[in-house]
Amino acid sequence: MIITLLTDFGLADPFVGVMKGVIYGINPEAEIVDLSHEPPAYDVKEAAFLMKCSYRYFPRGTIHVVVVDPGVGSKRRPLLATTDYYYFLAPDNGVLSYLFAADEVRGVIHITATHYFLKPVSATFHGRDIFAPVAAYLSRGIPPTSFGEEIQDWVRLEVPLPRRQANGSLEGEVVRLDRFGNLITSIEERDIAALLGGKSADSLRIKVGEHKIVGLSACFAEGREGQPGAIIGSFGHLEIFVKEGSAAERLGAGRGDRILLELVK
Amino acid sequence: MIITLLTDFGLADPFVGVMKGVIYGINPEAEIVDLSHEPPAYDVKEAAFLMKCSYRYFPRGTIHVVVVDPGVGSKRRPLLATTDYYYFLAPDNGVLSYLFAADEVRGVIHITATHYFLKPVSATFHGRDIFAPVAAYLSRGIPPTSFGEEIQDWVRLEVPLPRRQANGSLEGEVVRLDRFGNLITSIEERDIAALLGGKSADSLRIKVGEHKIVGLSACFAEGREGQPGAIIGSFGHLEIFVKEGSAAERLGAGRGDRILLELVK
Amino acid sequence: MIITLLTDFGLADPFVGVMKGVIYGINPEAEIVDLSHEPPAYDVKEAAFLMKCSYRYFPRGTIHVVVVDPGVGSKRRPLLATTDYYYFLAPDNGVLSYLFAADEVRGVIHITATHYFLKPVSATFHGRDIFAPVAAYLSRGIPPTSFGEEIQDWVRLEVPLPRRQANGSLEGEVVRLDRFGNLITSIEERDIAALLGGKSADSLRIKVGEHKIVGLSACFAEGREGQPGAIIGSFGHLEIFVKEGSAAERLGAGRGDRILLELVK
Repeated sequence: MIITLLTDFGLADPFVGVMKGVIYGINPEAEIVDLSHEPPAYDVKEAAFLMKCSYRYFPRGTIHVVVVDPGVGSKRRPLLATTDYYYFLAPDNGVLSYLFAADEVRGVIHITATHYFLKPVSATFHGRDIFAPVAAYLSRGIPPTSFGEEIQDWVRLEVPLPRRQANGSLEGEVVRLDRFGNLITSIEERDIAALLGGKSADSLRIKVGEHKIVGLSACFAEGREGQPGAIIGSFGHLEIFVKEGSAAERLGAGRGDRILLELVK
Repeated sequence: MIITLLTDFGLADPFVGVMKGVIYGINPEAEIVDLSHEPPAYDVKEAAFLMKCSYRYFPRGTIHVVVVDPGVGSKRRPLLATTDYYYFLAPDNGVLSYLFAADEVRGVIHITATHYFLKPVSATFHGRDIFAPVAAYLSRGIPPTSFGEEIQDWVRLEVPLPRRQANGSLEGEVVRLDRFGNLITSIEERDIAALLGGKSADSLRIKVGEHKIVGLSACFAEGREGQPGAIIGSFGHLEIFVKEGSAAERLGAGRGDRILLELVK
Repeated sequence: MIITLLTDFGLADPFVGVMKGVIYGINPEAEIVDLSHEPPAYDVKEAAFLMKCSYRYFPRGTIHVVVVDPGVGSKRRPLLATTDYYYFLAPDNGVLSYLFAADEVRGVIHITATHYFLKPVSATFHGRDIFAPVAAYLSRGIPPTSFGEEIQDWVRLEVPLPRRQANGSLEGEVVRLDRFGNLITSIEERDIAALLGGKSADSLRIKVGEHKIVGLSACFAEGREGQPGAIIGSFGHLEIFVKEGSAAERLGAGRGDRILLELVK
């Protein structure tokens, strides 16, 4: 059984390694995969987006664990959410909001069964003391309902969805930068298809600040050196890129910046 | 059998991956966990502290491998230390000093059985040529005594322990910064309990440079935005933090800086 | 069966984790090892050198996957190269050039069997959509020839080999910096042996810019604090180092810089 880990612990500290030690101590057969440990510290929205992009690529039954948890040790609840294919363990701080928005969640349990926790439970490291052992017991086949009682009032954050303007254009925003400096936007392939309504992608005009991009590139290599281009990225979102360069640097753009899509008449 | 790796190799170079290749070549059943590969280069003390914080969270029989080794290729000896629960492989440079100080070590072997090494043994990468293959053979059940002869004169570094001052206050120091900028101190929960002698934690006054902190927070979320707080961290050490910020930056403090604990009369 | 991953994806994005999800979905028994995910973005030469240094340390049958792929989504072909001991999956952009130069390759297949790919195949992430699933099926025993047809006209990049000067000296170059600031050169141990022709290494004079180094050190610890030394590194290449410091900083040297080896008369 696969357990994925998405935390803001970084890799310099031994936090992630220690979580793995706890998991293997309970289930030596677990297969653990690191999704990312380097979203900015405390950045719940970034973690939420990374999970949205990733979870579908894992086999059925995978347990996805998110520990980006500025409220650790306070009253925020630890959650176990189930979908048709996956389990998600996360603090109740909205980090699963994309899942809730997509209406994929079949049930959410507030984890209260302390006999599965590592004792003593610290006030600062629930990744080790709660989420790791619960993930490990869950991967051994303990049913979700054993870990607590079902709830309905979990925290939802607003997820940035593109909006149709009065003039018909589509407004989205940059939701993250990747390592290559690509600007990943809130606009998905299906949003663009709806905007185009059968027209060719060549009729698209994409505005990022002062910059205007015409049409979509089929691949990164197609762009002109140093010039911004637009592409449907690997997770189905519109991305602004610069061929073998950084769009973030070239365009001076960052998270939250507005992206506007229009059609040529 | 689990083998953990703690090195200063970083992850940009393929050193760690190559060690894993060597281990799997000898024991395909090994389960390898990365503890950290990013302590500052050559920083034996930092690695010693990271290992102290981590090793207990792994299942019995785990083999912990430390390769922070400025003396690689010189006459410094490769060691195999055993405790009641674990094995430790490390260079004889004091990186296991916390273990020795805690009196947990049952025996130390100077590894000399060259027929277990990868040939030719390089002068610069004993992680690959000595520690990885010895860890792999050990994980296959070869008894520790097969790897060399017992010694008593291993290197010990002084570990930073808190000291009681003449006026009754307790003096410790910052032993490391974590990714969040928290200042982790040499003062442990039990030291504070001894200082308090039954009094409430509210009577604690903690001095870091010019800054004074009153009492202990129960969790990070309890702090006031931008203000330093003190907490018992996840590894049982007193930590100075700033809510959703960096205590190191806010207080201008770093490793080696003095921390003073006093009781209000 | 071991699958290694060498990409320029970094670890902040979930790209690598997602590739692992795809692999485990096809072959739950695969053992995945990260070689490095932090060569500079798009740096095919750096990745080629890292692979050259690493692949031999893995057990027979290991599948080495390289995804440093500025041409992803364009017409560049995905390749499967086989040697006597290993499989290599990589884009046809020269990233396997050291293997080709060493004449170790027994056959190269242009991967065209799209029924093994993850659908829909994106234009930007062949690591997930082509290389990961092909690696996973290959690790399950599907024969290489099932993935496409043999080709001969793959891309080769010139690999930096040291050159003998008219005056008998040997000219090489810095091919990479490691984490410690060591300068790794294109000059290998056997090149030095040929230059020495039986003479002692003490008669070597090594020039890096203005700096001159005499002879070879047997280990890093042997150097004088702050002074540059030369050593045969762990992958058999001549390296310039500074004891417990950074040679790159101390000598102001970087990749591509010339290194000259002479013999004292």
